Amino acid sequence: MGSGAVKERLYLFDTTLRDGQQTAGVDFSVEEKTKLATLLAAMGVDYVEGGFPGANPTDTAFFAEAHDLGSTKLTAFGMTKRAGRSASNDPVLQGVLSAKADAFCFVAKSWDYHVEFALGVTLDENLASIRETVTLAVQNGREVMIDCEHFFDGYKANPEYALDCARAAHEAGARWVVLCDTNGGTLPNEVSRIVGEVAARIPGSHLGIHAHDDTGCAVANSLAAVQAGVRQIQGTLNGLGERCGNANLISLIPTLKLKPHFAETFEIGISEEGLRGITALSRQLDEMLNRNADRHAPYVGTNAFATKAGIHASAILKDPRTYEHVAPATVGNRRRLLVSDQGGKSNLLAELERVGIPLGKDDPAVSRLLDTVKERETAGYAYEGAQASFELLARRTLGDVPSFFEVESFRTSVELRHNAQGELATVCEAVVKVSVRGESLMSVAEGIGPVNALDLALRKDLGGYQPFIRDLRLVDYKVRILDGGTEAVTRVLIESSDESGETWTTIGVSPNIIDASFQALIDSVTYKLLKSGAPAP
Amino acid sequence: MGSGAVKERLYLFDTTLRDGQQTAGVDFSVEEKTKLATLLAAMGVDYVEGGFPGANPTDTAFFAEAHDLGSTKLTAFGMTKRAGRSASNDPVLQGVLSAKADAFCFVAKSWDYHVEFALGVTLDENLASIRETVTLAVQNGREVMIDCEHFFDGYKANPEYALDCARAAHEAGARWVVLCDTNGGTLPNEVSRIVGEVAARIPGSHLGIHAHDDTGCAVANSLAAVQAGVRQIQGTLNGLGERCGNANLISLIPTLKLKPHFAETFEIGISEEGLRGITALSRQLDEMLNRNADRHAPYVGTNAFATKAGIHASAILKDPRTYEHVAPATVGNRRRLLVSDQGGKSNLLAELERVGIPLGKDDPAVSRLLDTVKERETAGYAYEGAQASFELLARRTLGDVPSFFEVESFRTSVELRHNAQGELATVCEAVVKVSVRGESLMSVAEGIGPVNALDLALRKDLGGYQPFIRDLRLVDYKVRILDGGTEAVTRVLIESSDESGETWTTIGVSPNIIDASFQALIDSVTYKLLKSGAPAP
Repeated sequence: MGSGAVKERLYLFDTTLRDGQQTAGVDFSVEEKTKLATLLAAMGVDYVEGGFPGANPTDTAFFAEAHDLGSTKLTAFGMTKRAGRSASNDPVLQGVLSAKADAFCFVAKSWDYHVEFALGVTLDENLASIRETVTLAVQNGREVMIDCEHFFDGYKANPEYALDCARAAHEAGARWVVLCDTNGGTLPNEVSRIVGEVAARIPGSHLGIHAHDDTGCAVANSLAAVQAGVRQIQGTLNGLGERCGNANLISLIPTLKLKPHFAETFEIGISEEGLRGITALSRQLDEMLNRNADRHAPYVGTNAFATKAGIHASAILKDPRTYEHVAPATVGNRRRLLVSDQGGKSNLLAELERVGIPLGKDDPAVSRLLDTVKERETAGYAYEGAQASFELLARRTLGDVPSFFEVESFRTSVELRHNAQGELATVCEAVVKVSVRGESLMSVAEGIGPVNALDLALRKDLGGYQPFIRDLRLVDYKVRILDGGTEAVTRVLIESSDESGETWTTIGVSPNIIDASFQALIDSVTYKLLKSGAPAP
Repeated sequence: MGSGAVKERLYLFDTTLRDGQQTAGVDFSVEEKTKLATLLAAMGVDYVEGGFPGANPTDTAFFAEAHDLGSTKLTAFGMTKRAGRSASNDPVLQGVLSAKADAFCFVAKSWDYHVEFALGVTLDENLASIRETVTLAVQNGREVMIDCEHFFDGYKANPEYALDCARAAHEAGARWVVLCDTNGGTLPNEVSRIVGEVAARIPGSHLGIHAHDDTGCAVANSLAAVQAGVRQIQGTLNGLGERCGNANLISLIPTLKLKPHFAETFEIGISEEGLRGITALSRQLDEMLNRNADRHAPYVGTNAFATKAGIHASAILKDPRTYEHVAPATVGNRRRLLVSDQGGKSNLLAELERVGIPLGKDDPAVSRLLDTVKERETAGYAYEGAQASFELLARRTLGDVPSFFEVESFRTSVELRHNAQGELATVCEAVVKVSVRGESLMSVAEGIGPVNALDLALRKDLGGYQPFIRDLRLVDYKVRILDGGTEAVTRVLIESSDESGETWTTIGVSPNIIDASFQALIDSVTYKLLKSGAPAP
C-alpha cells in the first residue's frame, strides 16, 4: 500500500495492570494503577485493562471510582457466567458489570479439554455462557470483548469447537474476539496459519491477539497475527506477565510505527511525540517496581544503541544508518559509543562531544585521556558503564574540576557481638572527616552495611555545599570481583539520581571493597556538585 | 514429515565468545573461554566461535593453544582480505589462518553502500576479496564460512549485489554462507521472503542465519530462516551480544528439540540429556559474568514455569498440560507454584541423592527441608550455585552436623588515614573470637579488605581443629546485590578448595555485606571440617 492510501486502524490493548500483575513479585496499588493508566492514555493506547473488579480489594477499589482517560477505554476484566445459573444471577459477573469502566473483557474457555476437565461443564453449556454473558454486557451499554483462553492449543485439538466459541462471542455482539495463546508455546508459523483460518470466518477487524513469551516469540507472534488479519494487539509494558511475560508493547509499538511494512499499512493511536516518550515510560514502570531496567531491551534499553567495536563506531560517526536500524531519538533513546579497551579514538571523541567537551581529534589532551583510560581499564576500571566517572576523568584531564572537598580520613567498622538481649547482632558505623574550604568537618553515621554507613556519613555535612547535594540519592550499587579470592580486585559501580530524574553512574576499583565503594561515592557527590553548578571553593 | 522419516540435519553455531563479547561489560579471559567452549562442546553445539585471533591479546592466546572439543569445530573469526594486496600478503588474515582452529568464519560486506562507503573499495574488489580469502583458507585445509554482514539491508538495497557476494563465497568453496542481520532491524516476514529467494539460488544446506534482537524478533527470525531453507543457526548463550544481543540459543534449542513442527523435521546435535543441562548452562554463564539470571527467560528462567494464579495452579496439579507448554524437567528447569508448592519435592529428592543423602519422598525431614529451602530462597539464598551450603543445610535438618565451633563475636574495621610518610593509606583489621570445645580463642589479622582480614583471623586458630583446615584456601569470591541501593540485600558466594583439588561453594545472604561474607566463610570452614573427617567436639 502506498503512503498516500488510507491506512487500516490497528488497536492497542494494554493489560499491564491485569495480566502484568500476574508477574511474580508485582502487586500494584490503586495509586500506581491510576498513574499507569494515565500514562498509557497519554501515550495513546486504545484500551487499558485495569484489573478484575471483585477478585481482590485493590481492583474493586480501582473500579469503584471513575477515571478520566480521554478517548482511551478503561476495561474491566471478568469471567463469563458460571454454568447452571443465569447471567443476571451470577454475583461475580454482576460485580464486574457494576464497575466504572468503558469496556468489559471476559475470559472464556475455548479448548474442549479445558471446558470438560477444568470447568466440568458440557461444551454446549460453555457456548451458552459465552452468548449470555456477551448479550447481558452489551445490554449494559458497554463495549464487550471475549478473551478466548487457550485458543491456539484448543484449535489444534478441536478446531471446530474453538471456532464455535469465537463465533458465539462475535454473533452475540462482542466488539472483539481475542485469540489467546495462554500457555505461550505457539510458534509464529502456527499463529499465521490458525489466525488466517479464523479470519476467513470472523472478520479480522473484530479479532485480537494475546501472546505470551514462553518461546521468546511473543512479539513475532503478535506481528504474525496482524499480518494474518487481526486488528487488536494485547500486551504489557516491558513484557510484564506470568512466567516469561506477555507480548511487550514497548517493543511492538516502535516496530508498528517505524518499520515501513507496518507503518505504511496500519495506523495506531500513538503519535510521533508519544513514541518519543516510550523510553521514559518503560523506565518509569521499572522505577515504580524498583527493578533494574533491562539494559538490552529492544529500542528502549540503555545499550539498545550502544556500540563497543571501534570499527563500527567510526562508521556510525560517518553515517548512523550503517549500524542503526532506526534513529534512537525517534523512541526517546540515545546512541552510546562505549569507551573501552576495544573502542578507539573515535568512540572517545564522540563521547566527549556528548558530555559537552568538544575536542579536535588532534588535540594532545585526547591522546593523554585515551592513555589514561586504557591504563585505568587495565587496572580494572570499566568506563563504558560509568559515564559520570568518565566525564569527571575527562574534565580533570583538562583541569576543569574544582576540588570541592578533600577527604582527610575515614573509618568504618562492623562488629558482631551479643546485645543486651543476649542475641548476636551486627552494628556498622562510619566516621568521615572532610575538609571544605579549609574547614575540617567530621561526621558519623550508622548504616545497614559498612558502605551504607560511609555513604550516610559522607553526605551528612559538606558545609556550604550541603544544599547542592540535598536531593542526591543512590539507586543502585553493584560489586564485581575481577579475579578470584578475597584478595582480588573489586570493581564497584554506583548509580545515583536526584529530583530532576537524571541518573548517573560512577566507578571505583581497589583490592579493598570499601576503598572501591568510597571512590565511587566521592565521584557521585562530585558529579552532583558539578551538575548543580556548585561554585569552586 | 512423519516421525519415521529421515530428518534433515540442522547445525548450531555458537558465537558467545566472539559476538557475545561485544556486550557492554563482557570480557572473557582465556580460562573462561576455555571453560565455556568445553561446556558448549559437551552439550553438542556443532561450532564454537572462539574469537578473532590477532585482534586482542586474549583471543590470540586462546587460539595459540589447541583445544580438544571432540566433534565440535572450534572456529576462528576473521575478516576477508584487504583490497589492494594479495591474501597471502595480508598480515591480519595470515594471523587468523595460523590459529589452532578447525574452521574459519570470515566477515565480508554484502551491502553495496557499505562496500563503497565504509570500505572505500569497488564492488568488484570486494567480490574478489571474498573469493580469494575463501580459496586461500580452503587450501589451508580447514572448513570455511563467510558471514555476509548486513545481508538483509544489503539485499533490500541491491539484491543482485548481495546475492553476488553470497554466490562468490559459495562458488569459491565456503561450506557455509551466513546471512547476517547485522543491525537487527529485519522482521520475520522479510527474513522469510529474502531467505526464500536466496535459497532458490544457493542450496539451503549451505546457508546460515545470524540474527540480532533489536526488534525482539531474533529467535523468530532464526526460526523463519530455517523454515525458508537455511540449515545453520548462529546465536549466543542467553542472547549475549552488542546492543540488544544476538539470537538466544538457550531459547532456540528447546524449541528445535521439543516443538513437533521442528523436532519432526530436523535433527540437531543436542541429545535429550544435553537439553536437560540447558538451564544449568544458562545459569553457569550468568555466574561467570556475575549477572543476575533473567528470571523470565523462556524455558530456563526461574519463573518460566512459575504460576501465581490459584486457579491455574490447581489445574496444573491435576494435569500439567493445562498451563505448561512443555514439561519443565525436559530443559532441567522446575515448576514453581507460588501458592502451595508441591512440585519442588522431586527436585529436592534428586538433589539429596546427588549429595549422598538418600531419603524417601514421604520422610518428614524432606518436607521440613523443602520449607526451609523455600523460606531461605525467598530471602535471597540461591542453593543452585552453592551446593556445599545446601548439603550443610540438609545435614543440619537431619541433625548430622556437629557444632565444631561457635563464633562469639567479630569486629572488622577499615581505616583511611595519613601514614607516617604523609600519604593516605587504608588499613583493614579483623578480630574474631570463637569458642572451641569450651575454650575461647581470639585471633586478629590484617587483610587487603575487610573480608580478607576476617577470613585470615577466622582460620588462624581453631584450636584442635586447626590441622583439618590447614590446606583450605579461597579461590573465588562473588558479590551480588539483589535489589538497588546501598541498603539492598547482598548475596555472597565463596568458592574454596584444598590439596585434594576438590572445590566447593558456600553462600551467605544479608543486608550487610560483611555478615553475608562471614556466613559463607563459616560454611566453607564447616564443610571442610566435615569432609576432612574432623571429630565432633
